[in-house]
Amino acid sequence: MRSKPNEQDQGSSAGAGANTELSIAVTEALRRALGEPSGTVPLHEPRFAGNEWAYLRDCLDSTFVSSVGPYVDRFERDLEALTGARRAVALVNGTAALHVALLLAGVRPGDEVLVPAFTFVATVNAVSYCGATPHFVDIEERTLGLDARRLDAYLKEIAVERAGSLVNRASGRPIRALVPMHTFGHPSDLEGLVGVADRYGLALVEDAAEGLGSTYRGRHVGTFGLLGVLSFNGNKTITTGGGGAILTNDEELAARAKHLTTTAKLPHRWAYRHDQVGFNYRMPNINAALGCAQLEQLPAFLSAKRRLLDRYLAAFEGIPGVKIFEEPAEASSNYWLHALLLDDPEAKAQDAILAATNEAGLGTRPPWTPMHMLEPYAGCPRMDLTVTETLSRKIVNLPSGPGLAIVGEDGVERAAGE
Amino acid sequence: MRSKPNEQDQGSSAGAGANTELSIAVTEALRRALGEPSGTVPLHEPRFAGNEWAYLRDCLDSTFVSSVGPYVDRFERDLEALTGARRAVALVNGTAALHVALLLAGVRPGDEVLVPAFTFVATVNAVSYCGATPHFVDIEERTLGLDARRLDAYLKEIAVERAGSLVNRASGRPIRALVPMHTFGHPSDLEGLVGVADRYGLALVEDAAEGLGSTYRGRHVGTFGLLGVLSFNGNKTITTGGGGAILTNDEELAARAKHLTTTAKLPHRWAYRHDQVGFNYRMPNINAALGCAQLEQLPAFLSAKRRLLDRYLAAFEGIPGVKIFEEPAEASSNYWLHALLLDDPEAKAQDAILAATNEAGLGTRPPWTPMHMLEPYAGCPRMDLTVTETLSRKIVNLPSGPGLAIVGEDGVERAAGE
Repeated sequence: MRSKPNEQDQGSSAGAGANTELSIAVTEALRRALGEPSGTVPLHEPRFAGNEWAYLRDCLDSTFVSSVGPYVDRFERDLEALTGARRAVALVNGTAALHVALLLAGVRPGDEVLVPAFTFVATVNAVSYCGATPHFVDIEERTLGLDARRLDAYLKEIAVERAGSLVNRASGRPIRALVPMHTFGHPSDLEGLVGVADRYGLALVEDAAEGLGSTYRGRHVGTFGLLGVLSFNGNKTITTGGGGAILTNDEELAARAKHLTTTAKLPHRWAYRHDQVGFNYRMPNINAALGCAQLEQLPAFLSAKRRLLDRYLAAFEGIPGVKIFEEPAEASSNYWLHALLLDDPEAKAQDAILAATNEAGLGTRPPWTPMHMLEPYAGCPRMDLTVTETLSRKIVNLPSGPGLAIVGEDGVERAAGE
Repeated sequence: MRSKPNEQDQGSSAGAGANTELSIAVTEALRRALGEPSGTVPLHEPRFAGNEWAYLRDCLDSTFVSSVGPYVDRFERDLEALTGARRAVALVNGTAALHVALLLAGVRPGDEVLVPAFTFVATVNAVSYCGATPHFVDIEERTLGLDARRLDAYLKEIAVERAGSLVNRASGRPIRALVPMHTFGHPSDLEGLVGVADRYGLALVEDAAEGLGSTYRGRHVGTFGLLGVLSFNGNKTITTGGGGAILTNDEELAARAKHLTTTAKLPHRWAYRHDQVGFNYRMPNINAALGCAQLEQLPAFLSAKRRLLDRYLAAFEGIPGVKIFEEPAEASSNYWLHALLLDDPEAKAQDAILAATNEAGLGTRPPWTPMHMLEPYAGCPRMDLTVTETLSRKIVNLPSGPGLAIVGEDGVERAAGE
């Protein structure tokens, strides 16, 4: 039996009208910013306009396509030059990199690891692979990253030092590490988070999977903790097909990362001996070749993303109820994924915009479902996650591929519509 | 204080002379078989003489390089056509494939898994990743694979059925699965092993990492158990840079394999929800493109390996103390790695041959150090491993790349020396 419409439904209905209006305005602004594209515009399409072909060809000609090869070494050296990290270790993907970084940071079965609830599931899965439990921390709207001030107050309340380890009073488990994630490429409050890690004796492991090219007070993200992690998945600022890397300033940790990710095989001219349970996580040479070519184009990609930001700022100016997210003052973001912030944390407004834009062929998406709302992680310990829950309904990511505002060889700026 | 040479030392010294003689004879036979090569001959160099370049270029042009792309699907369909498996799922490497296959076979923390001690460490590491314990089984000289008859007798002695599970009497742990590995591509005694798995209620998971193109009584290896695993690492018969696949005739297991290896994300137009702890194990499109081109050349590669076998058989005929390993009668091997068997299981003979051949620029290698002799696996349960220990000192793998005896477009057979 159907109930009569009540006041609440009428409210929704009025809201639906407002939402339709807003989604039309957003779609139109997007189309303007993208130069009135005739076809569909993916959320983040990679761009191969450099030496990709030449380097791939070189791999085939040399027959070095697998895990030993000159491009793997070169890609690592290039990453070190870019990030300023003393050592980079190229791996099969960002998830594998985070798994190994956590192991090297001392995360053991039965430990807890502080992670944002507002992240891609890989951050949290990597904790699970170590046999540890994610402990969810809230974010702040200013950076979209972990809220250092509230985390500090929370740890004061729930944790205690026992025998040199920070221990969760409620679970009795050691809290071993802190893993900030630089959301959409925007640097988290690293000064605050380094402070928390130091005060509580936590290993800081930066999940900079989205942050290639982003800096915090002039220093590349991923280099502030004991270890940092990058990703070069197909949807990232540069891609190796699938790929990731560990960054560290600690030579010994780097050597252990390389050993552990190449089946822990001991060096020998022909004998096969392995001294621990290792992993098959090394990046193949053919993927590294792609990475070398892509990395050469990173400055151009970063400029393109910044030009696209300007276009989005201009296009959305004056549309009430939304604003384009901008980097925190102390940081320079790679703007991996541009984000539209809605004033109203109402899921229906977000849904209406997602539906309208995707139907118009414009690749938009919401943030990830917060981790504590996923079935496998629903029972994990957590602080109050109000900002995570609110922001997960207030954000829509916009098309952000480097090709959308690239300056061609002719010096002319392109748009998707051209 | 140095002791005087005793009889044993004199024996060794006489042995050293014999070993020098043997290694010279082996080196000369190898050089003959390989057409007197002027440069070095690697153990297994891949060959890219087909559509590799065209397909890689297509990836770049289409911008599909990552984990979603037409070549991944095509590679899976091609593997299904080749192997006769109902479903193939392409993954980032063979280790990842085996990890997920074991999970899908029901291997859980605290279980034991029967594996050869004579294998590459990945077989055993995959068991560790599941939180299970490897239980080592001996091999037979006829197939270089698990000895079904002795395994049967061993299980009768050490295991008991409790509440529907086979349980190791000594450890009290369930023995969940049986993982034969097809050594150097030679099919194990699958009839015998399927029988053991059936009799004891064990899940059969074939590690066919080395077996692409090998058949047992006309059926492709990797399709006899619940699940099978292939590898396309750089040193394998065909390569995708890094890569592997799961084979299964069970549609539901295949669907679960795909779900679990793509972060267990639920299908949705834009939302990010994951219903279990998944993995980032999907093969990137660019690696699959390489695989499609390589697979087209598999018949030519297999013929080349068989021609190389004939050359090795001819070159080593009449050299006392050694013989070339040949496939068991009921099987057709891909001859991934050719193997020289020494009559004498004396480590010094093997070492002398390895040193002489490698110094002559001929890429040879010994088998893997048996798993129970590696530090991380020294304490695992095991049956008597006499054959494993003996064979690990009696085998030298010989150069086996498909380019060493390929028939060119001109119909002329090539050798490394040409």
